[in-house]
Amino acid sequence: MKATIERATLLKSLSHVQSVVERRNTIPILSNVLLEASADGRIRLMATDLDLQVVESIEAAVDQAGSTTVSAHTLFDIARKLPEGSQVELNAADGKMQVNAGRARFNLSTLPRDDFPVIAEGELPTKFELPSETLKQIIDKTRFAISTEETRYYLNGIFFHVSDEAQPVLKAAATDGHRLARVTVPRPEGAEGMPDVIIPRKCIAELRKLLDEVDGSVEITLSPTKIRFGLGNAILTSKLIDGTFPDYSRVIPTGNDKMLKIDPRSFEEGVDRVATIATEKTRAVKMALERDKITLSVTSPENGTAAEEVSGEYTSEGFEIGFNARYLLDILGQIEGDTVEVHLADAAAPTLIRENDKAPALYVLMPMRV
Amino acid sequence: MKATIERATLLKSLSHVQSVVERRNTIPILSNVLLEASADGRIRLMATDLDLQVVESIEAAVDQAGSTTVSAHTLFDIARKLPEGSQVELNAADGKMQVNAGRARFNLSTLPRDDFPVIAEGELPTKFELPSETLKQIIDKTRFAISTEETRYYLNGIFFHVSDEAQPVLKAAATDGHRLARVTVPRPEGAEGMPDVIIPRKCIAELRKLLDEVDGSVEITLSPTKIRFGLGNAILTSKLIDGTFPDYSRVIPTGNDKMLKIDPRSFEEGVDRVATIATEKTRAVKMALERDKITLSVTSPENGTAAEEVSGEYTSEGFEIGFNARYLLDILGQIEGDTVEVHLADAAAPTLIRENDKAPALYVLMPMRV
Repeated sequence: MKATIERATLLKSLSHVQSVVERRNTIPILSNVLLEASADGRIRLMATDLDLQVVESIEAAVDQAGSTTVSAHTLFDIARKLPEGSQVELNAADGKMQVNAGRARFNLSTLPRDDFPVIAEGELPTKFELPSETLKQIIDKTRFAISTEETRYYLNGIFFHVSDEAQPVLKAAATDGHRLARVTVPRPEGAEGMPDVIIPRKCIAELRKLLDEVDGSVEITLSPTKIRFGLGNAILTSKLIDGTFPDYSRVIPTGNDKMLKIDPRSFEEGVDRVATIATEKTRAVKMALERDKITLSVTSPENGTAAEEVSGEYTSEGFEIGFNARYLLDILGQIEGDTVEVHLADAAAPTLIRENDKAPALYVLMPMRV
Repeated sequence: MKATIERATLLKSLSHVQSVVERRNTIPILSNVLLEASADGRIRLMATDLDLQVVESIEAAVDQAGSTTVSAHTLFDIARKLPEGSQVELNAADGKMQVNAGRARFNLSTLPRDDFPVIAEGELPTKFELPSETLKQIIDKTRFAISTEETRYYLNGIFFHVSDEAQPVLKAAATDGHRLARVTVPRPEGAEGMPDVIIPRKCIAELRKLLDEVDGSVEITLSPTKIRFGLGNAILTSKLIDGTFPDYSRVIPTGNDKMLKIDPRSFEEGVDRVATIATEKTRAVKMALERDKITLSVTSPENGTAAEEVSGEYTSEGFEIGFNARYLLDILGQIEGDTVEVHLADAAAPTLIRENDKAPALYVLMPMRV
């Protein structure tokens, strides 16, 4: 293999590819990136952790087609440090790959191309497109609720499923048992009959990074066990979580009869301020609701107390309810409009939070005893 | 105590003060900041870790003089989150301190003012001033060489001493046994007869942060056991390291007869690039010197090899020498001019690095076997 690439092109592509590679690997080849130069003037870069695989194709002047694998992080670090505007010559032969640019010459250890594991995609019968902006929103408004508890592996991702309601819709949901986030969008053409899938957290994280560099549409193809995202020059393929996502719709309260309408920014800032004195053990912020007034407060045995009044529209009977401040802030941070609706029942019941009944996103938050 | 302060003033001062406070403290009051409001319209803030103490005085509208102590990090976090431009009311009574700003009210736990430890300065007979720019340079050009080995506690700081040479000078030196950095400046008035002192690393770090916000001169007063820096509204007092700094002058080579003159930027970039493939175990970069040409190289059993040629003025006999790449980069990062002189003897001898013989800073680097 012999090819020459612009340093900026190589660097950008390696930055996408290397982040899939885990820093510590018991299987040496998983530290490597597969480079495949083809006679049609392209180099494919591929990296994998066996569950997630990224492939990117970039333009190059290919003198001699061929392929090899070298340490992804080392090649990335080299590309990062090479002078701006330089041309990088890659030259693989005899178990080594030379990297030459300017007056610098590297001779890197390689591992055989044939040992590089590739995720067999199999048939991916469902195929649809989503605008990258829509996919970004779906991810941003749900990912914070993904569970990190490894024993509840079926909650370690975002659940995607289609549903026929007044309109056919695609729904994405994540929950850790304390809070639930769900986004509903019109069902894209081709998604009808789509199997329910749980996309793992790491795939979501890599996908979100790639989305920052792509405009237009993302092509999504999937089967019950694999999903593939086509974004510009990159293809991200992931295994899906093999488990059953709980029937979360039962958790979404429908009969909460007390409604608070409030400016999400002053609500968020108030919660953030009173939570300053909360400690690891006491994360709860108390909301005391009175007519058109909410008093937020935190009591910490070590630090003291904090309270702040925030005005809002509230006409139901007054009562007190507590929430994990961090969870409440996560949700409020996703509300973009200038009002948010908080639908309450009582101090022990799940609370529904949403911008309004037209908003694609909806959040459910379990209260804490205070 | 009752006083009102502008949020920005309070925040800035707390940001200086709280960084002295360790995150974890076995003695509870060391987590606190001492606040003292005096009738002349000022509040003094003081924090300490028993070795280092910072005091800052700020303007405030004082209704009632008095003092108390509260958690430094909590008060800092509160000040950070209060709305910009707000007025902060501090009101201490009955073992609590109220903090009110806008619609937020905090009631913080306090500890008695009388329990707050103050470093007794004693007599500080030596007194001189240094321009803050000079002090910044002294610190920046030496601190990277401070040893972190706790067993060699006498190397855990910067050594300051005066000396009568052609001109009377003040010298600052730091070393970890592998490299030495020394800066020489004209002896300021008042520093004659100054005792030798070793200023601890943490004091240096806090001093350096404060220097970023001060113009003009820093007033330094010291005894053999304590040092005090007066910078604007802040006073930093530190215990000195009770130990003997080694006679480092014997380490500075005077007979190195081979001189390389080189552009520090291309030298630095070349070392940084070839060091990409260095690992924790093999940090050595090899320099092969030939007439007007240096070849930098690194060999890593795992990653492969890297080499880069850099041109420079060199007319002595060719030979090879190795250095710890990190140490070499630390030094080159401090060279501002467009040439650096590297004075070499042989592959095993300490190497002298400096901009030229007029430069205030001088570095000695021990070679590594390669």
